[in-house]
Amino acid sequence: MTTDVLGRLAEVIETRKPDRGGDPETSYVARLLHKGPDAFLKKITEEAGEVVMAAKDLQHGSGTAQALVGEVADLWFHSMIALSHFGLRPADVVAELARREGIGGLEEKALRKAREREAQEAARAATTR
Amino acid sequence: MTTDVLGRLAEVIETRKPDRGGDPETSYVARLLHKGPDAFLKKITEEAGEVVMAAKDLQHGSGTAQALVGEVADLWFHSMIALSHFGLRPADVVAELARREGIGGLEEKALRKAREREAQEAARAATTR
Amino acid sequence: MTTDVLGRLAEVIETRKPDRGGDPETSYVARLLHKGPDAFLKKITEEAGEVVMAAKDLQHGSGTAQALVGEVADLWFHSMIALSHFGLRPADVVAELARREGIGGLEEKALRKAREREAQEAARAATTR
Amino acid sequence: MTTDVLGRLAEVIETRKPDRGGDPETSYVARLLHKGPDAFLKKITEEAGEVVMAAKDLQHGSGTAQALVGEVADLWFHSMIALSHFGLRPADVVAELARREGIGGLEEKALRKAREREAQEAARAATTR
Repeated sequence: MTTDVLGRLAEVIETRKPDRGGDPETSYVARLLHKGPDAFLKKITEEAGEVVMAAKDLQHGSGTAQALVGEVADLWFHSMIALSHFGLRPADVVAELARREGIGGLEEKALRKAREREAQEAARAATTR
Repeated sequence: MTTDVLGRLAEVIETRKPDRGGDPETSYVARLLHKGPDAFLKKITEEAGEVVMAAKDLQHGSGTAQALVGEVADLWFHSMIALSHFGLRPADVVAELARREGIGGLEEKALRKAREREAQEAARAATTR
Repeated sequence: MTTDVLGRLAEVIETRKPDRGGDPETSYVARLLHKGPDAFLKKITEEAGEVVMAAKDLQHGSGTAQALVGEVADLWFHSMIALSHFGLRPADVVAELARREGIGGLEEKALRKAREREAQEAARAATTR
Repeated sequence: MTTDVLGRLAEVIETRKPDRGGDPETSYVARLLHKGPDAFLKKITEEAGEVVMAAKDLQHGSGTAQALVGEVADLWFHSMIALSHFGLRPADVVAELARREGIGGLEEKALRKAREREAQEAARAATTR
Protein backbone atom coordinates (compact mmCIF):
# COMPACT_ATOMS: atom_id res chain seq x y z
CA MET A 1 0.00 0.00 0.00
CA THR A 2 2.79 2.38 0.90
CA THR A 3 4.25 2.13 -2.58
CA ASP A 4 0.87 2.88 -4.03
CA VAL A 5 0.34 5.92 -1.84
CA LEU A 6 3.81 7.48 -2.04
CA GLY A 7 4.18 6.54 -5.69
CA ARG A 8 0.76 7.89 -6.58
CA LEU A 9 1.42 11.06 -4.63
CA ALA A 10 4.74 11.50 -6.43
CA GLU A 11 2.96 11.02 -9.72
CA VAL A 12 0.45 13.74 -8.94
CA ILE A 13 3.25 16.09 -7.85
CA GLU A 14 4.85 15.50 -11.26
CA THR A 15 1.71 16.74 -12.96
CA ARG A 16 1.93 19.96 -10.97
CA LYS A 17 5.25 20.94 -12.52
CA PRO A 18 5.16 24.13 -14.58
CA ASP A 19 6.28 22.30 -17.74
CA ARG A 20 3.60 19.68 -17.19
CA GLY A 21 0.91 22.33 -17.07
CA GLY A 22 0.67 22.78 -13.31
CA ASP A 23 -1.21 25.98 -12.55
CA PRO A 24 0.18 28.11 -9.69
CA GLU A 25 -3.19 29.83 -9.39
CA THR A 26 -5.14 26.69 -8.62
CA SER A 27 -2.67 24.21 -7.16
CA TYR A 28 -0.68 24.60 -3.93
CA VAL A 29 2.06 22.28 -5.22
CA ALA A 30 2.25 23.98 -8.60
CA ARG A 31 2.61 27.28 -6.77
CA LEU A 32 5.55 26.04 -4.70
CA LEU A 33 7.23 24.47 -7.73
CA HIS A 34 6.64 27.64 -9.73
CA LYS A 35 8.18 29.84 -7.02
CA GLY A 36 11.30 27.68 -7.02
CA PRO A 37 13.50 25.91 -4.46
CA ASP A 38 13.48 28.48 -1.66
CA ALA A 39 9.69 28.26 -1.38
CA PHE A 40 9.52 24.53 -0.69
CA LEU A 41 12.88 24.27 1.10
CA LYS A 42 11.73 26.88 3.59
CA LYS A 43 8.66 24.74 4.20
CA ILE A 44 10.86 21.73 5.02
CA THR A 45 12.58 23.50 7.92
CA GLU A 46 9.26 25.00 9.01
CA GLU A 47 7.53 21.61 8.98
CA ALA A 48 10.47 20.05 10.84
CA GLY A 49 9.86 22.67 13.52
CA GLU A 50 6.18 21.75 13.59
CA VAL A 51 7.04 18.07 14.02
CA VAL A 52 9.21 19.04 17.00
CA MET A 53 6.43 21.16 18.53
CA ALA A 54 3.79 18.44 18.09
CA ALA A 55 6.17 15.89 19.63
CA LYS A 56 6.92 18.16 22.60
CA ASP A 57 3.19 18.68 23.18
CA LEU A 58 2.70 14.93 23.16
CA GLN A 59 5.67 14.44 25.49
CA HIS A 60 4.11 16.89 27.93
CA GLY A 61 0.73 15.20 27.88
CA SER A 62 -1.09 17.67 25.66
CA GLY A 63 -1.42 17.44 21.90
CA THR A 64 -2.46 14.28 20.09
CA ALA A 65 -0.76 11.45 18.28
CA GLN A 66 -2.80 12.40 15.22
CA ALA A 67 -1.34 15.91 15.28
CA LEU A 68 2.17 14.47 15.24
CA VAL A 69 1.27 12.11 12.40
CA GLY A 70 -0.15 15.07 10.48
CA GLU A 71 3.04 17.10 10.90
CA VAL A 72 5.26 14.20 9.82
CA ALA A 73 2.96 13.76 6.81
CA ASP A 74 3.45 17.46 5.98
CA LEU A 75 7.23 17.09 6.38
CA TRP A 76 7.43 14.05 4.12
CA PHE A 77 5.05 15.62 1.61
CA HIS A 78 7.15 18.77 1.25
CA SER A 79 10.29 16.60 1.02
CA MET A 80 8.63 14.87 -1.92
CA ILE A 81 8.02 18.21 -3.63
CA ALA A 82 11.74 18.97 -3.29
CA LEU A 83 12.64 15.52 -4.62
CA SER A 84 10.34 16.06 -7.60
CA HIS A 85 11.90 19.43 -8.42
CA PHE A 86 15.31 17.76 -8.65
CA GLY A 87 14.05 14.83 -10.74
CA LEU A 88 13.93 12.41 -7.82
CA ARG A 89 11.21 10.24 -6.31
CA PRO A 90 10.30 8.81 -2.92
CA ALA A 91 11.31 5.43 -4.36
CA ASP A 92 14.90 6.74 -4.46
CA VAL A 93 14.74 7.51 -0.75
CA VAL A 94 13.21 4.14 0.03
CA ALA A 95 15.87 2.45 -2.11
CA GLU A 96 18.55 4.33 -0.18
CA LEU A 97 17.05 3.16 3.10
CA ALA A 98 17.00 -0.40 1.73
CA ARG A 99 20.54 -0.04 0.34
CA ARG A 100 21.80 0.66 3.80
CA GLU A 101 20.55 -2.84 4.49
CA GLY A 102 17.93 -1.78 6.93
CA ILE A 103 18.75 -0.15 10.15
CA GLY A 104 22.03 -2.05 10.51
CA GLY A 105 23.61 -0.08 7.70
CA LEU A 106 22.15 3.16 9.01
CA GLU A 107 23.60 2.53 12.42
CA GLU A 108 26.91 1.61 10.92
CA LYS A 109 26.96 4.92 9.05
CA ALA A 110 26.01 6.78 12.21
CA LEU A 111 28.61 4.90 14.21
CA ARG A 112 31.27 5.56 11.58
CA LYS A 113 30.49 9.27 11.68
CA ALA A 114 30.53 9.16 15.47
CA ARG A 115 33.90 7.45 15.42
CA GLU A 116 35.32 10.04 13.05
CA ARG A 117 34.02 12.72 15.38
CA GLU A 118 35.57 10.81 18.24
CA ALA A 119 38.99 10.75 16.62
CA GLN A 120 38.80 14.49 15.98
CA GLU A 121 37.67 15.20 19.51
CA ALA A 122 40.40 13.03 20.95
CA ALA A 123 42.94 15.11 19.05
CA ARG A 124 41.34 18.28 20.34
CA ALA A 125 41.11 17.04 23.91
CA ALA A 126 44.81 16.24 23.84
CA THR A 127 45.66 19.89 23.24
CA THR A 128 44.95 23.01 25.18
CA ARG A 129 42.31 25.36 23.91
CA MET B 1 8.63 -2.77 -1.75
CA THR B 2 8.17 0.54 0.05
CA THR B 3 5.91 -1.09 2.61
CA ASP B 4 8.45 -3.80 3.12
CA VAL B 5 11.32 -1.39 3.59
CA LEU B 6 9.62 1.23 5.78
CA GLY B 7 7.72 -1.43 7.72
CA ARG B 8 10.81 -3.54 8.23
CA LEU B 9 12.82 -0.50 9.27
CA ALA B 10 10.09 0.44 11.76
CA GLU B 11 10.16 -3.09 13.11
CA VAL B 12 13.89 -2.93 13.71
CA ILE B 13 13.53 0.48 15.40
CA GLU B 14 10.99 -1.13 17.76
CA THR B 15 13.59 -3.69 18.84
CA ARG B 16 15.95 -0.85 19.76
CA LYS B 17 13.60 0.49 22.45
CA PRO B 18 14.99 0.35 25.97
CA ASP B 19 12.15 -1.90 27.17
CA ARG B 20 12.72 -4.19 24.22
CA GLY B 21 16.33 -4.66 25.19
CA GLY B 22 17.89 -2.05 22.89
CA ASP B 23 21.43 -1.34 24.04
CA PRO B 24 22.51 2.33 23.98
CA GLU B 25 26.13 1.23 23.99
CA THR B 26 25.93 -0.71 20.75
CA SER B 27 23.02 0.75 18.78
CA TYR B 28 22.72 4.31 17.47
CA VAL B 29 18.91 4.13 17.53
CA ALA B 30 18.82 2.62 21.03
CA ARG B 31 21.06 5.46 22.16
CA LEU B 32 18.72 8.13 20.78
CA LEU B 33 15.65 6.42 22.22
CA HIS B 34 17.41 6.02 25.57
CA LYS B 35 18.36 9.70 25.70
CA GLY B 36 14.76 10.68 25.12
CA PRO B 37 12.81 13.02 22.82
CA ASP B 38 15.19 15.98 22.71
CA ALA B 39 17.95 13.79 21.28
CA PHE B 40 16.05 12.63 18.21
CA LEU B 41 13.90 15.76 17.80
CA LYS B 42 17.05 17.85 17.59
CA LYS B 43 18.23 15.54 14.82
CA ILE B 44 15.02 16.18 12.86
CA THR B 45 15.64 19.93 12.64
CA GLU B 46 19.33 19.30 11.97
CA GLU B 47 18.58 16.83 9.16
CA ALA B 48 15.99 19.22 7.70
CA GLY B 49 18.80 21.78 7.52
CA GLU B 50 21.00 19.23 5.76
CA VAL B 51 18.27 18.52 3.22
CA VAL B 52 18.11 22.25 2.52
CA MET B 53 21.89 22.51 2.13
CA ALA B 54 22.10 19.49 -0.20
CA ALA B 55 19.24 20.91 -2.28
CA LYS B 56 20.90 24.33 -2.49
CA ASP B 57 24.17 22.71 -3.60
CA LEU B 58 22.27 20.85 -6.30
CA GLN B 59 20.45 24.03 -7.33
CA HIS B 60 23.79 25.77 -7.75
CA GLY B 61 25.27 22.99 -9.85
CA SER B 62 27.46 21.42 -7.22
CA GLY B 63 26.49 18.54 -4.97
CA THR B 64 24.81 15.37 -6.22
CA ALA B 65 21.31 13.98 -6.43
CA GLN B 66 22.53 11.06 -4.33
CA ALA B 67 23.57 13.43 -1.54
CA LEU B 68 20.07 14.93 -1.47
CA VAL B 69 18.50 11.47 -1.46
CA GLY B 70 20.77 10.53 1.45
CA GLU B 71 19.74 13.58 3.48
CA VAL B 72 16.04 12.98 2.87
CA ALA B 73 16.62 9.36 3.92
CA ASP B 74 18.23 10.61 7.15
CA LEU B 75 15.32 13.00 7.72
CA TRP B 76 12.67 10.31 7.21
CA PHE B 77 14.67 7.83 9.28
CA HIS B 78 14.89 10.15 12.28
CA SER B 79 11.19 10.98 11.86
CA MET B 80 10.53 7.26 12.17
CA ILE B 81 12.50 7.11 15.42
CA ALA B 82 10.28 9.88 16.80
CA LEU B 83 7.15 8.10 15.58
CA SER B 84 8.32 4.90 17.28
CA HIS B 85 8.94 6.66 20.59
CA PHE B 86 5.34 7.86 20.59
CA GLY B 87 3.90 4.48 19.62
CA LEU B 88 3.39 5.41 15.99
CA ARG B 89 4.53 3.90 12.71
CA PRO B 90 5.35 5.08 9.18
CA ALA B 91 2.14 3.29 8.14
CA ASP B 92 0.24 5.93 10.14
CA VAL B 93 1.89 8.68 8.12
CA VAL B 94 1.20 6.90 4.86
CA ALA B 95 -2.41 6.34 5.92
CA GLU B 96 -2.69 10.06 6.69
CA LEU B 97 -1.33 10.91 3.25
CA ALA B 98 -3.84 8.47 1.73
CA ARG B 99 -6.64 9.81 3.94
CA ARG B 100 -6.16 13.23 2.45
CA GLU B 101 -7.12 11.47 -0.78
CA GLY B 102 -3.85 12.02 -2.46
CA ILE B 103 -2.57 15.41 -3.26
CA GLY B 104 -6.04 16.81 -3.81
CA GLY B 105 -6.84 16.65 -0.13
CA LEU B 106 -3.43 18.02 0.77
CA GLU B 107 -3.91 20.96 -1.52
CA GLU B 108 -7.38 21.56 -0.18
CA LYS B 109 -5.97 21.68 3.34
CA ALA B 110 -3.21 24.05 2.22
CA LEU B 111 -5.71 26.19 0.37
CA ARG B 112 -8.07 26.26 3.34
CA LYS B 113 -5.24 27.40 5.61
CA ALA B 114 -4.22 29.97 3.01
CA ARG B 115 -7.79 31.26 2.85
CA GLU B 116 -7.99 31.54 6.63
CA ARG B 117 -4.74 33.48 6.55
CA GLU B 118 -6.19 35.58 3.79
CA ALA B 119 -9.23 36.51 5.82
CA GLN B 120 -7.05 37.47 8.75
CA GLU B 121 -4.74 39.50 6.55
CA ALA B 122 -7.65 41.25 4.92
CA ALA B 123 -8.84 42.33 8.35
CA ARG B 124 -5.37 43.56 9.19
CA ALA B 125 -4.89 45.31 5.88
CA ALA B 126 -8.13 47.18 6.47
CA THR B 127 -6.74 48.81 9.58
CA THR B 128 -3.75 50.98 10.20
CA ARG B 129 -0.74 49.47 11.84
CA MET C 1 24.27 51.53 19.93
CA THR C 2 23.54 47.82 19.98
CA THR C 3 22.07 48.10 23.47
CA ASP C 4 19.94 50.96 22.33
CA VAL C 5 18.64 49.12 19.29
CA LEU C 6 18.04 45.67 20.82
CA GLY C 7 16.77 47.17 24.06
CA ARG C 8 14.47 49.59 22.26
CA LEU C 9 13.21 46.80 20.02
CA ALA C 10 12.53 44.63 23.07
CA GLU C 11 10.65 47.52 24.65
CA VAL C 12 8.41 47.90 21.63
CA ILE C 13 7.77 44.14 21.55
CA GLU C 14 6.63 44.43 25.19
CA THR C 15 4.01 46.97 24.19
CA ARG C 16 2.62 44.49 21.64
CA LYS C 17 1.68 41.97 24.33
CA PRO C 18 -2.06 41.27 24.59
CA ASP C 19 -2.15 42.44 28.22
CA ARG C 20 -0.34 45.63 27.27
CA GLY C 21 -2.94 46.42 24.67
CA GLY C 22 -1.21 45.00 21.60
CA ASP C 23 -3.72 44.67 18.79
CA PRO C 24 -3.49 41.48 16.69
CA GLU C 25 -5.41 43.20 13.92
CA THR C 26 -2.90 45.97 13.42
CA SER C 27 0.44 44.66 14.66
CA TYR C 28 2.39 41.68 13.30
CA VAL C 29 4.10 41.11 16.65
CA ALA C 30 0.85 41.40 18.60
CA ARG C 31 -0.65 38.85 16.25
CA LEU C 32 2.16 36.34 16.87
CA LEU C 33 2.03 36.89 20.63
CA HIS C 34 -1.75 36.58 20.58
CA LYS C 35 -1.62 33.30 18.66
CA GLY C 36 0.76 31.87 21.23
CA PRO C 37 4.11 30.02 21.26
CA ASP C 38 3.66 27.76 18.23
CA ALA C 39 3.16 30.76 15.95
CA PHE C 40 6.47 32.44 16.73
CA LEU C 41 8.44 29.23 17.45
CA LYS C 42 7.54 27.96 13.99
CA LYS C 43 8.93 31.20 12.59
CA ILE C 44 12.25 30.60 14.36
CA THR C 45 12.88 27.29 12.56
CA GLU C 46 11.60 28.78 9.33
CA GLU C 47 13.90 31.81 9.61
CA ALA C 48 16.83 29.54 10.50
CA GLY C 49 16.15 27.75 7.21
CA GLU C 50 16.13 31.09 5.42
CA VAL C 51 19.48 32.03 6.97
CA VAL C 52 20.87 28.73 5.66
CA MET C 53 19.48 29.35 2.16
CA ALA C 54 20.82 32.91 2.00
CA ALA C 55 24.22 31.68 3.18
CA LYS C 56 24.29 28.89 0.60
CA ASP C 57 23.39 31.37 -2.16
CA LEU C 58 26.27 33.57 -1.02
CA GLN C 59 28.61 30.59 -0.86
CA HIS C 60 27.74 29.73 -4.44
CA GLY C 61 28.31 33.26 -5.69
CA SER C 62 24.71 34.34 -6.03
CA GLY C 63 22.67 36.13 -3.39
CA THR C 64 23.94 39.13 -1.47
CA ALA C 65 25.51 39.81 1.89
CA GLN C 66 22.57 42.12 2.60
CA ALA C 67 20.12 39.25 2.08
CA LEU C 68 22.00 37.17 4.65
CA VAL C 69 22.05 40.08 7.08
CA GLY C 70 18.31 40.49 6.58
CA GLU C 71 17.62 36.83 7.34
CA VAL C 72 19.77 36.87 10.47
CA ALA C 73 17.91 40.02 11.52
CA ASP C 74 14.61 38.16 11.04
CA LEU C 75 15.94 35.19 13.03
CA TRP C 76 17.10 37.35 15.93
CA PHE C 77 13.92 39.40 15.83
CA HIS C 78 11.66 36.36 16.12
CA SER C 79 13.93 35.00 18.89
CA MET C 80 13.26 38.25 20.73
CA ILE C 81 9.51 37.76 20.40
CA ALA C 82 9.89 34.32 21.99
CA LEU C 83 12.07 35.77 24.75
CA SER C 84 9.46 38.44 25.42
CA HIS C 85 6.65 35.89 25.66
CA PHE C 86 8.57 34.08 28.39
CA GLY C 87 9.43 37.26 30.31
CA LEU C 88 12.99 37.42 28.99
CA ARG C 89 14.99 40.04 27.15
CA PRO C 90 17.88 40.21 24.68
CA ALA C 91 19.93 41.58 27.57
CA ASP C 92 19.60 38.14 29.20
CA VAL C 93 21.08 36.52 26.11
CA VAL C 94 23.88 39.06 25.94
CA ALA C 95 24.56 38.55 29.65
CA GLU C 96 24.74 34.80 29.05
CA LEU C 97 27.22 35.34 26.23
CA ALA C 98 29.25 37.59 28.54
CA ARG C 99 28.93 35.13 31.43
CA ARG C 100 30.64 32.50 29.36
CA GLU C 101 33.55 34.96 29.44
CA GLY C 102 33.56 35.61 25.77
CA ILE C 103 34.27 32.96 23.28
CA GLY C 104 36.67 31.15 25.59
CA GLY C 105 33.86 30.01 27.82
CA LEU C 106 31.72 29.11 24.83
CA GLU C 107 34.46 26.99 23.39
CA GLU C 108 35.06 25.35 26.74
CA LYS C 109 31.38 24.41 26.91
CA ALA C 110 31.48 23.09 23.35
CA LEU C 111 34.65 21.19 24.05
CA ARG C 112 33.22 19.73 27.26
CA LYS C 113 30.14 18.53 25.37
CA ALA C 114 32.38 17.14 22.64
CA ARG C 115 34.45 15.30 25.21
CA GLU C 116 31.35 13.82 26.82
CA ARG C 117 30.25 12.68 23.38
CA GLU C 118 33.72 11.32 22.85
CA ALA C 119 33.60 9.23 26.01
CA GLN C 120 30.21 7.84 24.99
CA GLU C 121 31.40 7.09 21.48
CA ALA C 122 34.52 5.41 22.78
CA ALA C 123 32.34 3.09 24.85
CA ARG C 124 30.19 2.37 21.80
CA ALA C 125 33.16 1.86 19.51
CA ALA C 126 34.56 -0.68 21.96
CA THR C 127 31.54 -2.92 21.49
CA THR C 128 30.00 -4.59 18.50
CA ARG C 129 26.77 -3.17 17.14
CA MET D 1 27.32 46.73 27.20
CA THR D 2 25.67 44.79 24.37
CA THR D 3 27.94 46.40 21.82
CA ASP D 4 30.92 45.50 23.92
CA VAL D 5 29.88 41.88 24.30
CA LEU D 6 28.70 41.16 20.75
CA GLY D 7 31.50 43.25 19.25
CA ARG D 8 34.13 41.61 21.42
CA LEU D 9 32.75 38.16 20.65
CA ALA D 10 32.82 38.95 16.93
CA GLU D 11 36.41 40.09 17.31
CA VAL D 12 37.44 36.82 18.93
CA ILE D 13 35.62 34.84 16.22
CA GLU D 14 37.70 36.76 13.65
CA THR D 15 40.89 35.52 15.29
CA ARG D 16 39.66 31.93 14.91
CA LYS D 17 39.63 32.15 11.12
CA PRO D 18 42.06 29.80 9.36
CA ASP D 19 43.91 32.68 7.72
CA ARG D 20 44.19 34.45 11.06
CA GLY D 21 45.86 31.41 12.60
CA GLY D 22 42.81 29.79 14.19
CA ASP D 23 43.65 26.21 15.11
CA PRO D 24 40.94 23.61 14.40
CA GLU D 25 42.59 21.27 16.87
CA THR D 26 42.24 23.58 19.83
CA SER D 27 39.34 25.92 19.07
CA TYR D 28 35.71 24.94 18.52
CA VAL D 29 35.08 28.02 16.37
CA ALA D 30 38.24 27.51 14.32
CA ARG D 31 37.12 23.96 13.72
CA LEU D 32 33.71 25.03 12.40
CA LEU D 33 35.24 27.76 10.22
CA HIS D 34 37.85 25.30 8.94
CA LYS D 35 35.20 22.73 8.01
CA GLY D 36 33.33 25.32 5.99
CA PRO D 37 29.75 26.60 5.69
CA ASP D 38 27.83 23.34 6.04
CA ALA D 39 29.34 22.72 9.48
CA PHE D 40 28.11 25.95 11.07
CA LEU D 41 24.95 26.30 8.97
CA LYS D 42 23.83 22.87 10.15
CA LYS D 43 24.35 24.10 13.71
CA ILE D 44 22.03 27.05 13.08
CA THR D 45 19.06 24.84 12.20
CA GLU D 46 19.96 22.46 15.03
CA GLU D 47 20.16 25.30 17.57
CA ALA D 48 16.88 26.73 16.28
CA GLY D 49 15.35 23.34 17.06
CA GLU D 50 16.84 23.49 20.55
CA VAL D 51 15.36 26.94 21.12
CA VAL D 52 11.97 25.53 20.14
CA MET D 53 12.35 22.55 22.49
CA ALA D 54 13.45 24.71 25.43
CA ALA D 55 10.53 27.06 24.79
CA LYS D 56 8.05 24.18 24.63
CA ASP D 57 9.40 22.78 27.91
CA LEU D 58 8.94 26.20 29.49
CA GLN D 59 5.43 26.51 28.02
CA HIS D 60 4.53 23.16 29.58
CA GLY D 61 5.83 24.11 33.00
CA SER D 62 9.07 22.16 32.90
CA GLY D 63 12.42 23.47 31.77
CA THR D 64 13.87 26.79 32.91
CA ALA D 65 14.10 30.30 31.60
CA GLN D 66 17.87 29.97 31.84
CA ALA D 67 17.82 26.96 29.52
CA LEU D 68 15.92 28.99 26.93
CA VAL D 69 18.34 31.88 27.30
CA GLY D 70 21.23 29.46 26.82
CA GLU D 71 19.75 28.05 23.62
CA VAL D 72 19.09 31.50 22.17
CA ALA D 73 22.68 32.40 23.07
CA ASP D 74 23.87 29.31 21.17
CA LEU D 75 21.69 30.25 18.19
CA TRP D 76 22.95 33.83 18.06
CA PHE D 77 26.53 32.69 18.61
CA HIS D 78 26.45 30.27 15.68
CA SER D 79 24.75 32.96 13.56
CA MET D 80 27.75 35.16 14.35
CA ILE D 81 30.14 32.47 13.14
CA ALA D 82 28.26 32.37 9.84
CA LEU D 83 28.31 36.17 9.61
CA SER D 84 32.05 36.14 10.22
CA HIS D 85 32.68 33.58 7.50
CA PHE D 86 30.96 35.85 5.00
CA GLY D 87 32.78 38.98 6.15
CA LEU D 88 29.87 40.29 8.17
CA ARG D 89 29.42 41.33 11.79
CA PRO D 90 26.67 41.44 14.39
CA ALA D 91 26.80 45.22 13.99
CA ASP D 92 25.45 44.72 10.47
CA VAL D 93 22.46 42.83 11.85
CA VAL D 94 21.86 45.45 14.52
CA ALA D 95 22.14 48.17 11.89
CA GLU D 96 19.57 46.34 9.78
CA LEU D 97 17.23 46.13 12.76
CA ALA D 98 17.74 49.84 13.35
CA ARG D 99 17.34 50.63 9.64
CA ARG D 100 13.89 49.14 9.70
CA GLU D 101 13.22 51.94 12.15
CA GLY D 102 12.53 49.71 15.06
CA ILE D 103 9.68 47.36 15.14
CA GLY D 104 7.48 49.61 13.07
CA GLY D 105 9.54 48.97 9.96
CA LEU D 106 9.68 45.25 10.72
CA GLU D 107 5.95 45.08 11.05
CA GLU D 108 5.49 47.04 7.86
CA LYS D 109 7.70 44.54 6.03
CA ALA D 110 5.76 41.64 7.54
CA LEU D 111 2.46 43.27 6.70
CA ARG D 112 3.59 43.99 3.16
CA LYS D 113 4.56 40.34 2.69
CA ALA D 114 1.26 39.26 4.21
CA ARG D 115 -0.63 41.53 1.84
CA GLU D 116 1.23 40.13 -1.16
CA ARG D 117 0.36 36.64 0.05
CA GLU D 118 -3.21 37.80 0.46
CA ALA D 119 -3.46 39.03 -3.11
CA GLN D 120 -2.08 35.73 -4.39
CA GLU D 121 -4.44 33.73 -2.22
CA ALA D 122 -7.39 35.79 -3.32
CA ALA D 123 -6.55 34.95 -6.92
CA ARG D 124 -6.27 31.27 -6.02
CA ALA D 125 -9.46 31.25 -3.97
CA ALA D 126 -11.30 32.67 -6.96
CA THR D 127 -10.48 29.63 -9.03
CA THR D 128 -11.19 25.95 -8.62
CA ARG D 129 -8.40 23.70 -7.50
